[in-house]
Amino acid sequence: MSSTTAGQVIRCKAAVAWEAGKPLVIEEVEVAPPQAMEVRLKILFTSLCHTDVYFWEAKGQTPLFPRIFGHEAGGIVESIGEGVTDLKPGDHALPVFTGECKECRHCKSEESNMCDLLRINTDRGVMLNDGKSRFSINGQPIYHFVGTSTFSEYTVLHVGSVAKINPAAPLDKVCILSCGISTGLGATLNVAKPKKGSTVAVFGLGAVGLAAAEGARIAGASRIIGVDLNAKRFDEAKKFGVTEFVNPKDHEKPVHEVLAEMTNGGVDRSIECTGSINAMISAFECVHDGWGVAVLVGVPNKDDAFKTHPMNLLNERTIKGTFFGNYKPRSDLPSVVEKYMNKELELEKFITHEVSFSEINKAFEYMLKGEGLRCIIRMDA
Amino acid sequence: MSSTTAGQVIRCKAAVAWEAGKPLVIEEVEVAPPQAMEVRLKILFTSLCHTDVYFWEAKGQTPLFPRIFGHEAGGIVESIGEGVTDLKPGDHALPVFTGECKECRHCKSEESNMCDLLRINTDRGVMLNDGKSRFSINGQPIYHFVGTSTFSEYTVLHVGSVAKINPAAPLDKVCILSCGISTGLGATLNVAKPKKGSTVAVFGLGAVGLAAAEGARIAGASRIIGVDLNAKRFDEAKKFGVTEFVNPKDHEKPVHEVLAEMTNGGVDRSIECTGSINAMISAFECVHDGWGVAVLVGVPNKDDAFKTHPMNLLNERTIKGTFFGNYKPRSDLPSVVEKYMNKELELEKFITHEVSFSEINKAFEYMLKGEGLRCIIRMDA
Ligand SMILES: [Zn+2]
Ligand SMILES: [Zn+2]
Repeated sequence: MSSTTAGQVIRCKAAVAWEAGKPLVIEEVEVAPPQAMEVRLKILFTSLCHTDVYFWEAKGQTPLFPRIFGHEAGGIVESIGEGVTDLKPGDHALPVFTGECKECRHCKSEESNMCDLLRINTDRGVMLNDGKSRFSINGQPIYHFVGTSTFSEYTVLHVGSVAKINPAAPLDKVCILSCGISTGLGATLNVAKPKKGSTVAVFGLGAVGLAAAEGARIAGASRIIGVDLNAKRFDEAKKFGVTEFVNPKDHEKPVHEVLAEMTNGGVDRSIECTGSINAMISAFECVHDGWGVAVLVGVPNKDDAFKTHPMNLLNERTIKGTFFGNYKPRSDLPSVVEKYMNKELELEKFITHEVSFSEINKAFEYMLKGEGLRCIIRMDA
Repeated sequence: MSSTTAGQVIRCKAAVAWEAGKPLVIEEVEVAPPQAMEVRLKILFTSLCHTDVYFWEAKGQTPLFPRIFGHEAGGIVESIGEGVTDLKPGDHALPVFTGECKECRHCKSEESNMCDLLRINTDRGVMLNDGKSRFSINGQPIYHFVGTSTFSEYTVLHVGSVAKINPAAPLDKVCILSCGISTGLGATLNVAKPKKGSTVAVFGLGAVGLAAAEGARIAGASRIIGVDLNAKRFDEAKKFGVTEFVNPKDHEKPVHEVLAEMTNGGVDRSIECTGSINAMISAFECVHDGWGVAVLVGVPNKDDAFKTHPMNLLNERTIKGTFFGNYKPRSDLPSVVEKYMNKELELEKFITHEVSFSEINKAFEYMLKGEGLRCIIRMDA
């Protein structure tokens, strides 16, 4: 197909969000060819993440509709625009909501993945090259979402937002590495870096938190303590290596004190995946003095304040924030896919549901009900 | 002398603080022999540090008098108690206010130097072995200070508080490595770890801050920005590699914004050496997103709260506290002495005054006036 469609507008199906909070509608859309430094990707599988739902509900943000959501996916390059040299039609790839231009200070720093050019932008609904959308219906532009818009059979992305991966990797599994799973996994493996035999606390046992626990399991942690207000999550969490469970509701004393008592003074590492400011502070205060490291993953509210006594820091504790698990999307995601290929990383256990593209609104229902972890949406069905 | 005095009480001179804030009095004291796991050290040089003055003034702490202060010093082992195997009479050594037992979880952790047994204790005025003092005047016990009490010709320490060093090192120079200089130096070299060519901000240009700057100079930082409310300190700071100076009083906008403008978004590393809570917060908020690391050295007030927006952390900034520059006293101080011996580290520029033991109260006057950095007190003069 690529040879005949390159340079042409493609007509295909996409799930369009016409209004905030209203069910998506499968429409026939026109997808323009990729411009300079852009790539057109045929999406085979996509999955749903909280961020899609958050911006679809558009509570508190500037609404931008009609829009095509979706940012966790796997696909195949259909065609490339001018100047694209490291991708070609037929390459397997994961779209990523935050890019890597390879030219800016952040991309050139070994320590950062917060690209100046392609860092996540949830307010922009157009492509950088010309400030316009590549999607339209009868001439009406449909907005992009975080540069990915994967709820479409074809989508156009900046080349910096496309990670080329091993073509042998099953896209219906590795597609979930586009966002949440890599975020949690990288928070542990790249930032918290627990040593073999150490004790790790994970705050929040949703998909991101369980991916952080999976990272701790891979790193050889001997105790992984899950902290969640929902006791139902513990059974599932065991599959991800969580060995103990603490529900703050079950205790009168603050949860950081409960954890300190369980661990002779504090955990070696903690990873906060809820975004609640109180959980953030507890996650910091529960690490052991001398060597404890707390890693913040969850995104807080605008008006939150992180507050602690500075002696907690001076007693040789560390606190670090992370974004997308500190992975540089193009440089690092291929190696995460390899971790799955060599069976170090287990992805199947994150995939609890599967629907056809026409049933995409079911995936939203599962997430709104808090049911399951990841729902794969098959584009060909 | 050691052969004849071992096992005997030694009568010698010590500077005794009889009362809070009153000039020290040179007295003849009796120094008991070292007990199990103790060492008796002949002090040759000592210097004065803010902590001595703070506890001598005894404003806000429980006063413990009469007491022999002093914790920065260099000396020679006179005799050893039962069970001491890694020190012998004649060894050159630095006493350290915080020890290293080599047995506890902290000592066994590669990441911590906060020994459970010998961690700094400013309230204890006696030896651990029998809960008694080794100093007395006519039978009246004189309290110890932080396990060192170096304002005495002879003192007794726990073996874990004695770092054996190269006997070729001049004790009148390396004695200042016992406390403040190592604290600042280690904060940069062991914790902030700036890369060659990076930009480092140092908050507070006293001895500790200048030692942090010296660390940045040794690490090859290309810009070292000193931040201090006292503009007079800049000239001296230049000797320590400080290349630029910011006085928060000269600016209407917050100092972290001034630094961000000077550095295209923030410094790579910052080191806070004042203990002021506002400086701590500024030191954190002035580091660059993506890779910035802030290191807290200064000791805050009891009621302070460190407060920041959690997004500052999530944008991949790190904040770490350190204690004694993360050096393990016995394991690591010998290598710091070697840095001086091979001329990597310059110590002479920290030594601005010198007095004889009989003039020790002059050293207090210099410090109270904020004059100079370190005053060496010669015990033999
Ligand atoms: Zn970039
Ligand atoms: Zn110890």
